[in-house]
Amino acid sequence: MDLTNARERLITLQDEMSAYDHALSLLSYDGETTAPKGTADNRAHAMGILTEAVYKLSTGKETVELLEYLDSRKEELSQKEQRMVELLIKDIRFLQKIPMDEYVAYEKLVVESESVWSKAKVENDYKAFAPYLEKIFDSRIRFAHYVNPDMDPYDFWLNEYEEGLTTQKVDAFFGQLKARLVPLIRKCAGKPQVSDACIKGDFSEDKQEKLAKWLMEVMGLDMDRVGLSTTEHPFTTSLGSHLDERITTHYYREDVSYSMFSVIHEGGHALYDTGSDGDLAYTVLDGGVSMGIHESQSRFYENILGRSKPFCRFLFPRIQELFPEEMKAYTWQDFYRAVNRVSPSLIRTEADEVTYCLHVMIRYELEKKIMAGGLKVPELPEAWNRLYEEYLGIQVPDDRRGVLQDSHWSFGAVGYFPSYALGSAYGAQFLQKMRETVDVDAALEKGDFAAINQWNREQIWRFGSLLTPAKILENVLGEPFDPTYYLDYLEEKCKDVYGL
Amino acid sequence: MDLTNARERLITLQDEMSAYDHALSLLSYDGETTAPKGTADNRAHAMGILTEAVYKLSTGKETVELLEYLDSRKEELSQKEQRMVELLIKDIRFLQKIPMDEYVAYEKLVVESESVWSKAKVENDYKAFAPYLEKIFDSRIRFAHYVNPDMDPYDFWLNEYEEGLTTQKVDAFFGQLKARLVPLIRKCAGKPQVSDACIKGDFSEDKQEKLAKWLMEVMGLDMDRVGLSTTEHPFTTSLGSHLDERITTHYYREDVSYSMFSVIHEGGHALYDTGSDGDLAYTVLDGGVSMGIHESQSRFYENILGRSKPFCRFLFPRIQELFPEEMKAYTWQDFYRAVNRVSPSLIRTEADEVTYCLHVMIRYELEKKIMAGGLKVPELPEAWNRLYEEYLGIQVPDDRRGVLQDSHWSFGAVGYFPSYALGSAYGAQFLQKMRETVDVDAALEKGDFAAINQWNREQIWRFGSLLTPAKILENVLGEPFDPTYYLDYLEEKCKDVYGL
Repeated sequence: MDLTNARERLITLQDEMSAYDHALSLLSYDGETTAPKGTADNRAHAMGILTEAVYKLSTGKETVELLEYLDSRKEELSQKEQRMVELLIKDIRFLQKIPMDEYVAYEKLVVESESVWSKAKVENDYKAFAPYLEKIFDSRIRFAHYVNPDMDPYDFWLNEYEEGLTTQKVDAFFGQLKARLVPLIRKCAGKPQVSDACIKGDFSEDKQEKLAKWLMEVMGLDMDRVGLSTTEHPFTTSLGSHLDERITTHYYREDVSYSMFSVIHEGGHALYDTGSDGDLAYTVLDGGVSMGIHESQSRFYENILGRSKPFCRFLFPRIQELFPEEMKAYTWQDFYRAVNRVSPSLIRTEADEVTYCLHVMIRYELEKKIMAGGLKVPELPEAWNRLYEEYLGIQVPDDRRGVLQDSHWSFGAVGYFPSYALGSAYGAQFLQKMRETVDVDAALEKGDFAAINQWNREQIWRFGSLLTPAKILENVLGEPFDPTYYLDYLEEKCKDVYGL
Repeated sequence: MDLTNARERLITLQDEMSAYDHALSLLSYDGETTAPKGTADNRAHAMGILTEAVYKLSTGKETVELLEYLDSRKEELSQKEQRMVELLIKDIRFLQKIPMDEYVAYEKLVVESESVWSKAKVENDYKAFAPYLEKIFDSRIRFAHYVNPDMDPYDFWLNEYEEGLTTQKVDAFFGQLKARLVPLIRKCAGKPQVSDACIKGDFSEDKQEKLAKWLMEVMGLDMDRVGLSTTEHPFTTSLGSHLDERITTHYYREDVSYSMFSVIHEGGHALYDTGSDGDLAYTVLDGGVSMGIHESQSRFYENILGRSKPFCRFLFPRIQELFPEEMKAYTWQDFYRAVNRVSPSLIRTEADEVTYCLHVMIRYELEKKIMAGGLKVPELPEAWNRLYEEYLGIQVPDDRRGVLQDSHWSFGAVGYFPSYALGSAYGAQFLQKMRETVDVDAALEKGDFAAINQWNREQIWRFGSLLTPAKILENVLGEPFDPTYYLDYLEEKCKDVYGL
């Protein structure tokens, strides 16, 4: 093996991996969007075999030797190559420690589990889903032990979604949030509630779809590369590279805002992914680096930009144009207040910005307990309902609107939720930096995202996974991460909306 | 290698192949249905790599040795295993003779070509598509030479779509058809034209979709396993096995019948595929055996059943229910006559049953000439238009409604078209046999397909690709194939509709 040849093979290897990744992502996406409902078994059959092929490709002797060789000559590699080798070795070490049959069985399990969850949610039948969830949590604990026996299993997975994250850090972060959010929510509750009548009504799906596509264009998404579909639960996925990106939404006829803000949220993910430098395509450096940074973009677009005063002002005439009857009695200020209404609610994805983090904390507390063995899967609904009572003061009427509401656990994303809160807080601190060079309010009032996107592209998107999350934060902020910015931002919003 | 072990490996090999097939079929399907329009390059990247993996799996030393070993012990294998080995060896012999890089390049070519064709059709820009079409025809000629240098290249491809078919046979078949169809069309033209006013109007896509799904249910398709999407050009595809089948349609607001009969047509393909015996899933015996037999099912359901008097009688009240305003002035007899109107037209997929075969003959004549070098791709539109004038007596106003109308050539299906006519003729002969034990008219009048489907399942579907097309015809018919049945059927239909 010589270095020139090894460098070429490094590229070919990632090319191959990206093709399998494309196929597997598309199989999942198809299952969520288009596939007839009785076909999960057939999909699991193909995914099991392709997952095995990926496992063999990744952990095969040739690959391992190649990467070890490249690692031994690290200093001669470019920064990009070094990071590729580092990330590939990390993945391989992970896979090598998990027996192939267990890994393949797990991948098949989550395919079936997603489809079981989906049905269980519709039928409000937690019992049907529980055996799958049990296996998923068990596997996550077992896999963490295989890979890093000395580490706490939940810490292991937190670190997978956000390099460097630990329960200790999350506890501290959530502690800080809780200390100011709980009184803030109480203060808002003490004021007269703002009306959300203007976003409620009967809004045809056709027109909501038009609005969704228009929003995607306004945000600056490349419509030739980014598709929109409908699913039970909105998400974003890249197929093979950032050159084919899909977002999904869900239209509720009775609420025009749900799909709008879910599209802006997923659109934020898509902007980040598709903003990778072109030469990162088909490499492990393509797309976002961590879920924390990812959510910092999605929640930045959704809330900090999307629910801002100047953007609501820009947005409202378009909504009025599409729904003249429904909107004729309202002004953009009504719309602004409606989408910033603070009110404890059942569903995380419909929650307002202020109570949102409490939803995340509940999931975090539950995951932590289950991963530590202090809570069993059958006891989860009860524990869930108790925490909703305690944190948000509301009664959960059924599991459909309770423990079954999110898809994450069904596809094995245990340890993911904290990144939503973390990303939200990153975003508020990014905003302060952005304001130093970009007139954010003026841009939003015109619905012109060019300068905002340009800033994010320069600072964050273009690097893909080349830089660690910590390095990105350091570069962008020039100071340590500090949740105070986020809490200040939320308090200011409440002052404005509720006149605190 | 021992026999027990080799038999197991035969199954594993096909399992693996089906997984790649699933991924590749889904990538194509996604490209036709959901993918954003600028993503063909990204899809081609993945498909190129996966195609290469299939090539290596199929032609690799291990596979070749396995199949040669099994072939040498043929007598000890079951009938199913024998046929698996036969079909796999046939595929491998094909692949082995084509250099891998040419094969992979071709597969990538057709992915891009489909997307170029699709755009060229919309923009009526044959010149944009011609370079791709040229490469496709060149590749088909070259591949045929590689695999069977002594055979006429067009005969080679005819035989690929329908085992045993040759230009000589097709010429004779089309000769017979032409001799009776041309005077029949003339006779109909001499009578007062029947009206198709009842199927023309403004029919919402929503309701057409409802109608389409209802038709699928009436036909007896398993809606848990068969999905419906929309595409420019309707088609059917299996994903990995007959356990996940997708059909597509296209809704024209101005004509309610187009989507209906395209759904029944594709539904016929889907019934055939999904009717394979369960234990054929994930083997090369799964799904239909040839395009001729496939079209015998699709065109049987579309025309012989779908456009029959008793079925139109059953169908019409449902259409009236969905479109009360549009249909209030009409009777089921009006509908029956409208969907059986004989009139030379531009578009094959919209053609009536009688002129349909002339559309197919035109494509056949052109393919034959190009494959023999007597016609060049740039001359194709002119030759196309000349034949439409000659065979159907109509002027082609533009390439969009001329040479660019069908997708087949764009994905390399050269030699496919004759199977439409052949299948139609098989179907008419099947009908005579079916009538011996099934009261077809009574079943159609009730919209109850159970007995009809049962007959087809028993005679045709359950075998998948286990039996050759010739064997199926022999079993079902008990006499040689004879196009006279088809011609008699068409004459009778015309007598009824036009009172000849």
